[in-house]
Amino acid sequence: MKLATYKDGSRDGQLVVVSRDLSMAHYASGIASRLQQVLDDWNFVSPQLQDLYTTLNQGKARHAFPFDPSLCMAPLPRAYQWVAGSAYLQHEQVLRKARGAPALEHAKSDPLLYQGASDDFLGPQDDIVVRSEDYGIDFGAGLAVVTGDVAMATPPQEALESVRLLMLVNDITLRQLMPPELAKGSGLVLSRPTAAFAPVAVTPDELGPAWQGGRVHLNLQVSWNGKKVGLCETGPEMQFHFGQLISHLCKTRQLRSGAIVGSGTVSNQDTARGYCCIAEKRALETLEHGAPKTEFMKLGDTVRMEVKGGDGVSVFGAIDQAVAARR
Amino acid sequence: MKLATYKDGSRDGQLVVVSRDLSMAHYASGIASRLQQVLDDWNFVSPQLQDLYTTLNQGKARHAFPFDPSLCMAPLPRAYQWVAGSAYLQHEQVLRKARGAPALEHAKSDPLLYQGASDDFLGPQDDIVVRSEDYGIDFGAGLAVVTGDVAMATPPQEALESVRLLMLVNDITLRQLMPPELAKGSGLVLSRPTAAFAPVAVTPDELGPAWQGGRVHLNLQVSWNGKKVGLCETGPEMQFHFGQLISHLCKTRQLRSGAIVGSGTVSNQDTARGYCCIAEKRALETLEHGAPKTEFMKLGDTVRMEVKGGDGVSVFGAIDQAVAARR
Repeated sequence: MKLATYKDGSRDGQLVVVSRDLSMAHYASGIASRLQQVLDDWNFVSPQLQDLYTTLNQGKARHAFPFDPSLCMAPLPRAYQWVAGSAYLQHEQVLRKARGAPALEHAKSDPLLYQGASDDFLGPQDDIVVRSEDYGIDFGAGLAVVTGDVAMATPPQEALESVRLLMLVNDITLRQLMPPELAKGSGLVLSRPTAAFAPVAVTPDELGPAWQGGRVHLNLQVSWNGKKVGLCETGPEMQFHFGQLISHLCKTRQLRSGAIVGSGTVSNQDTARGYCCIAEKRALETLEHGAPKTEFMKLGDTVRMEVKGGDGVSVFGAIDQAVAARR
Repeated sequence: MKLATYKDGSRDGQLVVVSRDLSMAHYASGIASRLQQVLDDWNFVSPQLQDLYTTLNQGKARHAFPFDPSLCMAPLPRAYQWVAGSAYLQHEQVLRKARGAPALEHAKSDPLLYQGASDDFLGPQDDIVVRSEDYGIDFGAGLAVVTGDVAMATPPQEALESVRLLMLVNDITLRQLMPPELAKGSGLVLSRPTAAFAPVAVTPDELGPAWQGGRVHLNLQVSWNGKKVGLCETGPEMQFHFGQLISHLCKTRQLRSGAIVGSGTVSNQDTARGYCCIAEKRALETLEHGAPKTEFMKLGDTVRMEVKGGDGVSVFGAIDQAVAARR
């Protein structure tokens, strides 16, 4: 099942069901108006949406209309919790090496998690609004799951069963604001203002065999100003699967329906595959040449992210954003 | 105006208006059922609640009933953003000194902020549920504001105008889980599982002259296992007022209605006033005797927090919690 949220002037938008090939959509009104409602009562509401989804895919839904991703908010325009991991170790290792920070001691057994802001997510085509180009504007392509309720101390395999939806995320980072925040040790706040999401959230079954062991085994394509800069494998190098990330997070807390847990920026050891965030490219340049050559995003720059299934169909639709100055 | 949220088995509870002296309450049904609804449409909804509040205080509300804080959830049982500051510099300074960390370079001009989890807040009498006593269970008494929408780059004075409600918070910390998280530099996640709130959220006008310059000028009383351990002034030593904290946070983002911004643990330089978190007491002991003497909370321990107005009336009602093992 594929779900999206249409802009309607309200804070939470209108829930729509989207056909598998992303060509058609149908308002979910009569079943649920907001995605959070569905997550709050998943076992009761989701089968009704699934029925509508089936009818829509069969071309039999009466009030179907062409799906327009430019009208989308984030599937969950605001959420009660957003935690991004850093599950692709290559990413963290390269960045630390380049800035002369020691490698993390237990990187392979102890996942890194960042608590993020979740009151104001961006839609797939919303501008990345910044006050200054000097902030070191960076994109970061990754995957994320939306969970149901998860009890404290749930083990990884069981935690995996709480995954309701998968999403594609652009976790925007203002890299030049990071060093002072890292020095303070209080986490990333100013440097991690918001995140953008692809138009469509999908249930794991949509991925077929590509959803395996709590990981998405597909390719993530990233283009910057129209030029392809990354085509990375999302599966094999994800050190911690989503069940492990959720389980780690709920060691000391329970999660409530609609919590979003991210994988962190996708990264492969084979650097020929390119990059999913600029910081990593700059880190590689620093390690090779002593200084970065690639600059961060400028006003007017665009970034596009997409994941295609084994059948060539876009799984989540595309994130396609431009950087804009605050008016 | 004073507002609370009654438990009704739902995730968001039922909004009630509470009389100034906390003796009586009245369901807000017919006006709004949830506090987030009010915040989303403040200018339209809040005057209606204010009318009900006036009637209630006059003893003329038809369906009023005795207010019972034991039936309360947090005023906002779940929120879209929760950021805690560390605005009482004494707190941060003592803790850093005791653990041998260097003082923050720009402590007086650059506020410390932590992004926290906001999907599962505790009510004023809910248990603090933990898996282990070894986590270093600590309370942390502070104040918090709930904001309306705040545009990016709003200056401090203007940001202050976005303050809709004030709350009293117990920001629970698992102190023994902090050192590895500080070493990773990714912020506090496992060590900051949730926070609890006093029964009643109040509009700033309820404080009269005690709400001045973006600060609450009252005394915060903290008792641990029935013994008074702190009676601290919340006003003069708050280095950054709430407008400054909000303004700092929105340097790179806009805030949406219902964001909660906390002051951090209240702390006074006059240590005779006692303490609002155990870590500070232990830090003072370490500085004086080379090691802490006071232990963290144990299973069954209780903590009580309350702020009284100039008239002796409890402003927010009391937080009164016990530590319980996960069942």
